[in-house]
Amino acid sequence: MRSLRVDCIPQISEALSQDLAGKTVIVIDALRATSNIVTALSNGAVSVWPVETVAQAKQAAGANDLLAGERQCKKIPGFDLGNSPLEFTEQTVSGQRIVMTTTNGTRGIQKAAKAAAVLAGSMLNARACAETALQWKRDIVLLCAGTKDVFALEDGLCAGLIAKEIRELRVGDLQFSDFTRAMEGAYDSFADRLEDVFSTSDSGIRLGRLGYGGDVSFCAQRNTTDTVPILTNGEMRAFSPRQIFSYK
Amino acid sequence: MRSLRVDCIPQISEALSQDLAGKTVIVIDALRATSNIVTALSNGAVSVWPVETVAQAKQAAGANDLLAGERQCKKIPGFDLGNSPLEFTEQTVSGQRIVMTTTNGTRGIQKAAKAAAVLAGSMLNARACAETALQWKRDIVLLCAGTKDVFALEDGLCAGLIAKEIRELRVGDLQFSDFTRAMEGAYDSFADRLEDVFSTSDSGIRLGRLGYGGDVSFCAQRNTTDTVPILTNGEMRAFSPRQIFSYK
Repeated sequence: MRSLRVDCIPQISEALSQDLAGKTVIVIDALRATSNIVTALSNGAVSVWPVETVAQAKQAAGANDLLAGERQCKKIPGFDLGNSPLEFTEQTVSGQRIVMTTTNGTRGIQKAAKAAAVLAGSMLNARACAETALQWKRDIVLLCAGTKDVFALEDGLCAGLIAKEIRELRVGDLQFSDFTRAMEGAYDSFADRLEDVFSTSDSGIRLGRLGYGGDVSFCAQRNTTDTVPILTNGEMRAFSPRQIFSYK
Repeated sequence: MRSLRVDCIPQISEALSQDLAGKTVIVIDALRATSNIVTALSNGAVSVWPVETVAQAKQAAGANDLLAGERQCKKIPGFDLGNSPLEFTEQTVSGQRIVMTTTNGTRGIQKAAKAAAVLAGSMLNARACAETALQWKRDIVLLCAGTKDVFALEDGLCAGLIAKEIRELRVGDLQFSDFTRAMEGAYDSFADRLEDVFSTSDSGIRLGRLGYGGDVSFCAQRNTTDTVPILTNGEMRAFSPRQIFSYK
């Protein structure tokens, strides 16, 4: 078996579509878009449809769908839900389809359009993402969303945790890029004070000031769910590593 | 005193000249260009003149100057020296002016043309770079050269060590960017096996295969010299943190 490569991209604007083509791409916007998608699907939402603009979201949503999203970290006027994982409770989202627009996470998912598979990764489902991605035996790209074309620490640390989980599941020969190794090292270094590091990252500070400190703590939790959102006909749907062969 | 910001750029092609304007920029090409400049000046070379092309190097060099440089990691035919720090001995370089062309390090130095000051950083002179940069009380940018527009682990770890030295010298309020913090974390994680990590990075593996394993070990040494190369009228000249006020 040839060696399987694990790359990591620091932020979306550095990602070239052709570098993602044919690979398994794990999009990471830990604060908060991908953590929300994971939480929504984990709590029983039927699907999450990521779209770029507010107008697209309104147009895409059927009468029974929930509209979710943020601009400048805040809930969009008229929407059912903002961008806080604490809003995506089982009571609110179970059985629902959610149309979601966020600033960076959605861009990341759309950038990966030529990928063989697109997963939503977060601290919450890091191990499940690793297990799922390894089953396909394709090269893996950890695509950190970042914020406004700048690297975000929480995304890098999440990529580092997923890389570590991949290494621990070691199946055959793995080749980690230099940047993947750097993120794995950074994760190891901060692993015992992750909530603190999340809350003092640029995004964490901004969210804390806006009153979303609870979101930051929530998103810093590790491996709390087996739910792996996978892009399926334009929508994110829930799979678990054990269901993965039912995917297309 | 306002807080002093410490940024880090993953690789040259991400650096925008305007983001470097007015700041203290520490260019890092740990394997091997900036390690060579540090070593040459530390061993008594009068100056190192970084130029972009082989033709420019030949044109710039006076009859008594030494020509140094590499292409695809190898010495350029007809040049006095290649790109190995082990060649830049006191016997060879003391009292000499060196015209140097390398692939990434030179580009990094030239990209920083609008900076207030440009330093050459490496593991060898990390603490001296930190001390020097802090004396100017300007924002600091750690500019990792990378290789072919991709992040190089050894540059990131060197940036992490310099960041750590800056933190330990703590003078007033420091604000580290998310990426600077990630690199500092990565450095901490690999600090006790640095030679091993250097030799297994993408650049380290390539250099080892070409027979330059000794260079890799040499460049992984920490804080062996107080020499800080600073760009002065287009040439790198040696300063120490204690001489810094003689630099205008």
